[in-house]
Amino acid sequence: MNHDDIVSGLVQELRRGTLILLALNCLQKPMYGYNLVKELQNHSIPIEANTLYPLMRRLESQGLLKSEWETSESKPRKYYKITEDGLIVLKKTTEQWKAFSNNVDKLLSEEENKNDK
Amino acid sequence: MNHDDIVSGLVQELRRGTLILLALNCLQKPMYGYNLVKELQNHSIPIEANTLYPLMRRLESQGLLKSEWETSESKPRKYYKITEDGLIVLKKTTEQWKAFSNNVDKLLSEEENKNDK
Repeated sequence: MNHDDIVSGLVQELRRGTLILLALNCLQKPMYGYNLVKELQNHSIPIEANTLYPLMRRLESQGLLKSEWETSESKPRKYYKITEDGLIVLKKTTEQWKAFSNNVDKLLSEEENKNDK
Repeated sequence: MNHDDIVSGLVQELRRGTLILLALNCLQKPMYGYNLVKELQNHSIPIEANTLYPLMRRLESQGLLKSEWETSESKPRKYYKITEDGLIVLKKTTEQWKAFSNNVDKLLSEEENKNDK
């Protein structure tokens, strides 16, 4: 296994850990699946539709998202939007993310400082 | 499934994603397993020894860590330290973490701004 494979495996794990947070965050406005894929990609969070769709179904079954078919457009599309419960989870998870990423940054910068000495 | 269970599940995924990064970072100085558990816990990254030890063995088999028995103390202890290869992976992964967490923060704050309007 070379370095780049190991690094990209780790990056994938990072992405997996924040995906739900980011999906819930984006879905404060209604979007269909491909919309969301594009929105995440625009923020350098590459994701395949194949990965996203099962996740959306899971979040819906947990009551964090609701979906609705929009049939007024030429092609019927299933729009997802965050629920009230989803908003509560989003708020808590965002706080946890901030605390967590601060801790990681702190730990990383402490070691950097030690190495400088 | 209540909110707190969902949130703590998500936080656990976050931790899983950064654990290797943090372990490699700490092991720039030699430590035995329990040392490392304590060091991470001190930075609000709770981890069980049961989770950590298999990870250390995996990182050693990938050539990112090396271990050595220290027998001069009253109780023999296996010390782990990062290798040259591990340092390369650590550097790359740290850069990836910074870019990634910036992207997440950016996406989260954009939505917050939208909601304020």
